[in-house]
Amino acid sequence: MSGKEKVTIYDISKKLNISAATVSRALNQNPKISEKTRELVAKTALEMNYKQNRLAQALKSGKTNNVGVIVPYINRSFFSSVIRGIEEELTPHGYHVIICQSHEEVKNEINQLNALLNTQIDGIFMSVSKTTQNTDHIKKALEEHTPLVFFDRKIEMSGVSSVVLDDFKAGYMATEHLIMEGCKKIAHLSGDINLEIYKNRFEGYRSALEKHGLTYHPEHVIQTNSKIESGQQAVAQLWECEEKPDAIFSAGDYAALGAIQELKSRNIRIPEDVCVVGFSNEPFTKYMELPITSMDQTPLLMGKIAAQVFLEQVKGNKTLTIEKKVVLSPELFVRSSSGRSILQPAEN
Amino acid sequence: MSGKEKVTIYDISKKLNISAATVSRALNQNPKISEKTRELVAKTALEMNYKQNRLAQALKSGKTNNVGVIVPYINRSFFSSVIRGIEEELTPHGYHVIICQSHEEVKNEINQLNALLNTQIDGIFMSVSKTTQNTDHIKKALEEHTPLVFFDRKIEMSGVSSVVLDDFKAGYMATEHLIMEGCKKIAHLSGDINLEIYKNRFEGYRSALEKHGLTYHPEHVIQTNSKIESGQQAVAQLWECEEKPDAIFSAGDYAALGAIQELKSRNIRIPEDVCVVGFSNEPFTKYMELPITSMDQTPLLMGKIAAQVFLEQVKGNKTLTIEKKVVLSPELFVRSSSGRSILQPAEN
Repeated sequence: MSGKEKVTIYDISKKLNISAATVSRALNQNPKISEKTRELVAKTALEMNYKQNRLAQALKSGKTNNVGVIVPYINRSFFSSVIRGIEEELTPHGYHVIICQSHEEVKNEINQLNALLNTQIDGIFMSVSKTTQNTDHIKKALEEHTPLVFFDRKIEMSGVSSVVLDDFKAGYMATEHLIMEGCKKIAHLSGDINLEIYKNRFEGYRSALEKHGLTYHPEHVIQTNSKIESGQQAVAQLWECEEKPDAIFSAGDYAALGAIQELKSRNIRIPEDVCVVGFSNEPFTKYMELPITSMDQTPLLMGKIAAQVFLEQVKGNKTLTIEKKVVLSPELFVRSSSGRSILQPAEN
Repeated sequence: MSGKEKVTIYDISKKLNISAATVSRALNQNPKISEKTRELVAKTALEMNYKQNRLAQALKSGKTNNVGVIVPYINRSFFSSVIRGIEEELTPHGYHVIICQSHEEVKNEINQLNALLNTQIDGIFMSVSKTTQNTDHIKKALEEHTPLVFFDRKIEMSGVSSVVLDDFKAGYMATEHLIMEGCKKIAHLSGDINLEIYKNRFEGYRSALEKHGLTYHPEHVIQTNSKIESGQQAVAQLWECEEKPDAIFSAGDYAALGAIQELKSRNIRIPEDVCVVGFSNEPFTKYMELPITSMDQTPLLMGKIAAQVFLEQVKGNKTLTIEKKVVLSPELFVRSSSGRSILQPAEN
């Protein structure tokens, strides 16, 4: 906004006819520099309106007190709650949390990881994008010895800690809940099976069917994305099957919402005819007039534990590589969309 | 994660017995340094596994290609959409967008602004917290000549550009819509009047009442925060008034949702007995079985224009100070909570 150039240590060194290294050492109160020179440099710096750059100091100390978080989207309740957990845990330790979103594009993820590494970040928390296959950008962070903690969506890499949900158990629990409600033909709206979390939710679903002696119908599994329309289309497709489902377990809340909208438009009663369970416990699931049963991923706890793992790494003996794998248990919030015994809409 | 120290230019200078400044200039291909020295430095740097720090270079060039965005919350659709607009506009120009949230605490805002300035950010986009009164931290950014653009919530400061919504017009439009629906006793759930945006929404409401010859009842204005409970409590309070309202214009969608929940629990019909209008067009407002009328703040456009204002500043003649004030028009999405003539729930 202005053409004024910043005063650098080179300007001070020129003015005083001493080396830039001496100016730098003097400003940093290095005892190798005489008291007299230190005072002279300080006085000159003040006169020239020099502002010592804390980042330049960080380049030396190797510590900025900034940590970076890379998530696919900031506007999903799950991710913003994990970030809140990281902040609550790290702010009291003097860290600033900087957030980037990849929009599920590995290209963005690479750029943002590099941008964060280039600002000399003290640590990275990351939930990888759907399109992340190659891990060179992540290896680069490890080579630069920047502590990295994966949360929710991880990649198997040796030496990297992670905090994830037990997604197999979550898929199993959701499906078993539907079976207990009397459902026998349970469809699954899966996410992208390339992502471990969605694969595990699907495996949990399939395992619960098997455990309870129910037939697995491959045509009852439809891949969706996290959009409402995707859930609407899935129901349209499912209702073309000969064997129509009596329940839907969706790997995401937005697809579950779309499924409910489509079922209603077909005058199918929920939960009497079809029970619906979502995933993530997005706030809207409880605001609905027909509140949606959903799986809570304990995001605040996930963020706090990820932060604790990071603190352990930076505070510990730096010659050790810590690899800690934490798996959290999901919690099912049963509401009217699947709880046939619930008369009043649940408030939780 | 490891004890290996990073190799610095000081290590290279020691090894070659030349000054650190010479090493730095050589690595940056400064023509003042002989070709021979440049080659020697490059070779030694490679042997010592020296990684040139792009940030250190940025300290010289004064450009990191990182811009910072500070918002009260990332998990409000309005703010995440503005951020999306900034990203869409700046990513093609090679900028990385770094996000921080203040949680409405000026203390956090100050820390984050300092952290961003210390990473030599190229520009700051900011929507101030509710508790921001003192502006010293913002003045610091201006003194360091970091381009700053306010969006939505601004502070009047000379030399700072801003992109905001015409909140007065929005308040006026929402209230006039309710009057057109036949409402005569319109209550207002206001936000914190210390924030200009909420003050303007209130003024617009009051002005519309006056224009249409309706009496302004101070007891029909209740200050709320952006929580659901706050809307519930407001209705409880309003229904203790002698003159009960026949409409509610809420300055936020969450309070509007709470108001609707409380009205329903009192068996008051919406929109027949009471019409409700929210503000922000949060996605949930259209998901509801009774979709909520809400004011759209065109956040994507707001972000894009804020980014364009920034680009104008950094690309323009740097000796000029640009101060650009952009005011956007709101758009009202009329849905079933107030549209008495709407038979089917609106889909927009």
